[in-house]
Amino acid sequence: MLQSALFTKTRKEIPADEVSKNAILLIKASFVNKEMAGVYSYLPLGLRVIKKIEAIIRDEMNKAGGQEVLMSVFHPKENWEKTGRWNSMDDLYKVKDSSDREVALGPTHEEMVVPLVQQYVNSYRDLPLSVYQIQNKFRMELRAKSGILRGREFIMKDMYSFHKDEEDLKNYYEKMQVVYKNIYDRVGIGHQTYMTFASGGSFSKFSHEFQTVTEAGEDTIYIDEEKGIAVNKEVLNDEVLAELGIDRSKLVEKKAIEVGNIFELKTKYSAPFDMVYKNENDENITIIMGCYGMGVSRLMGTLVEVCSDDKGIIWPEAVAPFLIHLLPLGVSENVSEEAKKIYNEFSKKGFEVLLDDRSLNAGEKFADADLIGLPYRVVVSERSLKEGGVEVKRRAEEKGEVMAVDKFIEMLKA
Amino acid sequence: MLQSALFTKTRKEIPADEVSKNAILLIKASFVNKEMAGVYSYLPLGLRVIKKIEAIIRDEMNKAGGQEVLMSVFHPKENWEKTGRWNSMDDLYKVKDSSDREVALGPTHEEMVVPLVQQYVNSYRDLPLSVYQIQNKFRMELRAKSGILRGREFIMKDMYSFHKDEEDLKNYYEKMQVVYKNIYDRVGIGHQTYMTFASGGSFSKFSHEFQTVTEAGEDTIYIDEEKGIAVNKEVLNDEVLAELGIDRSKLVEKKAIEVGNIFELKTKYSAPFDMVYKNENDENITIIMGCYGMGVSRLMGTLVEVCSDDKGIIWPEAVAPFLIHLLPLGVSENVSEEAKKIYNEFSKKGFEVLLDDRSLNAGEKFADADLIGLPYRVVVSERSLKEGGVEVKRRAEEKGEVMAVDKFIEMLKA
Repeated sequence: MLQSALFTKTRKEIPADEVSKNAILLIKASFVNKEMAGVYSYLPLGLRVIKKIEAIIRDEMNKAGGQEVLMSVFHPKENWEKTGRWNSMDDLYKVKDSSDREVALGPTHEEMVVPLVQQYVNSYRDLPLSVYQIQNKFRMELRAKSGILRGREFIMKDMYSFHKDEEDLKNYYEKMQVVYKNIYDRVGIGHQTYMTFASGGSFSKFSHEFQTVTEAGEDTIYIDEEKGIAVNKEVLNDEVLAELGIDRSKLVEKKAIEVGNIFELKTKYSAPFDMVYKNENDENITIIMGCYGMGVSRLMGTLVEVCSDDKGIIWPEAVAPFLIHLLPLGVSENVSEEAKKIYNEFSKKGFEVLLDDRSLNAGEKFADADLIGLPYRVVVSERSLKEGGVEVKRRAEEKGEVMAVDKFIEMLKA
Repeated sequence: MLQSALFTKTRKEIPADEVSKNAILLIKASFVNKEMAGVYSYLPLGLRVIKKIEAIIRDEMNKAGGQEVLMSVFHPKENWEKTGRWNSMDDLYKVKDSSDREVALGPTHEEMVVPLVQQYVNSYRDLPLSVYQIQNKFRMELRAKSGILRGREFIMKDMYSFHKDEEDLKNYYEKMQVVYKNIYDRVGIGHQTYMTFASGGSFSKFSHEFQTVTEAGEDTIYIDEEKGIAVNKEVLNDEVLAELGIDRSKLVEKKAIEVGNIFELKTKYSAPFDMVYKNENDENITIIMGCYGMGVSRLMGTLVEVCSDDKGIIWPEAVAPFLIHLLPLGVSENVSEEAKKIYNEFSKKGFEVLLDDRSLNAGEKFADADLIGLPYRVVVSERSLKEGGVEVKRRAEEKGEVMAVDKFIEMLKA
């Protein structure tokens, strides 16, 4: 894409009430626009990142047998009364419909997915199954101070699985732990993301969170580096440590962002809806459930917190809006023509390029490239051409290297 | 995909209050689930159709220079007060936030896109530009009786264009008329969709609707077949007919569904936000706008109204959830093994197949195939194998033909 054709530009000013690093960088680089506290719009570069994260999640969900659906944002009040959460959930948005009937804006979809799937499950032969969606959620957060990490409106993937017994749930639940780790590896934060034991509510001993270590985190976790697992502060006690075989003296305290959460719901939501199946003996058995959440917009924010420096964002390749930032420098006709040739060459080979074809000086282009944070900065100048090619610099590194375009393409393919 | 793995099944019963053909067929075939009046969830088959429609729209929007964004569902009250629509728009949903502040659920996004784009436009050099999104919208419809044609929650593509003068808007607006026709052609309803002159509100003489002729339509239009255009009943008068050079005696009255609507907004929304650019003489000029709406879920409903018979849906190829419905018949091991080979062959060649591997009799499989409505039904049976292949029948045709699998693949490629 030509950068001159992008309607957004990098910004110097940010909203006065914005304090979080993720939102400040994303707003400055024009990936998002703040509409009000906890509510953001996604601009062209930001939406490209969101779609890349979604594609990775979708791929892993499909491989795990998940069937994609898209449930409604509006939820009937009756469904939420059935589980008791109409009154007990503080952050539920309630809207009055034309007939003064109230509906909820979905903050999570157990109350919808159970009666939906219930219509199609009769026998043990219909189980197990899992469905997921990627969708806007709404939660009335009292303080929305962490940028896109904690929004009132946010994008989330939620999956729900249905099983004939707890053994079957356990197997799927353990499979999903691996799937979640794969996703964090693929988006580029696997090395600092820990599976963390957390409170299981009233139905399970534990749930599991996936926590990415960073100072911006709102959670405190205790990591056992050797075992590669962690314990959330809320469940840290001697009994738990003994059960997990963890030595307290080895634990390191860290701030972390919860980037995923999986729950063994068991019959918590199936029972209120009387969601049953017939077993081999024609007996009605209440269905066992699991649920698996992952915030898409929160993942984008976490990536910025973790992958950035004082100059801007450093996108991992798998989720970068473009792979290459191509910067022709100077006013020479020759340079801008060569840059266009190189741009076409990259595009033809299937690499995504942003060509900074604007009339700006080198310093301005470098500053924008650092802020936007594409993985490779490729400079074309009279000097680089004289030296036999382009100057390639990884965003994460200090020094670049002049090389022939063909050699760079070979390097990318490797 | 294996049909046995699909968690949905076709349904005999539909909600008692559902009267529209599109919703009845989509619910019976389990493309959608009705959650309450005017609110539907999309099930795996339905979501595949939605995504195919979206991909076609996105492709055409991108080709027309549109830049994709995703604006928020929550809209600040101030924005809507600025245009006067906080009070004047009857179907606006209003929600109370935690601090008892009110926000709107977006039914359209002029009030958001203007202040968003305003931040990036300074000079005439920044124009023209156009942005679009595909997103959930919310409208408090009093009667929601037309299935997914008129939802309280629905999926819509909305594009907004920004220009330096009316001439530039006019050029883009005319280009978008062609783009819209291309989309209707590609999804398969071009032959019965007419560009229709409609009321332009206070800022333009006309707006343009795109109306698909069907008895299920809520609108009445008058078509001039020769010219290939139509006039909406609301603006049908002698003055208009004279201006358009239409002879009243040639007009045919038809019911139709509005599947798109484009407006020359001019300064209607830019003026209240004081959205200006600097011209060549450094003067501030109010920006000229156009907007271009198209309901994605409504398009799906329209397709069902138009492309169906008394047995079920007849999906056009471009938007069908799968291209081929592969039906092995009988209990022979040989047949089911051959069917799997053929399934793999189709998949390898890149054709999307739904393999009905369930233990049902031929009548049940045929009825489901007709209801679901994939373009090609391919039967594998002892008889078809003996006759040299598979029986291929188009959903829209009565009679099938036995042919070798290779020949069918050649036919599909042609």
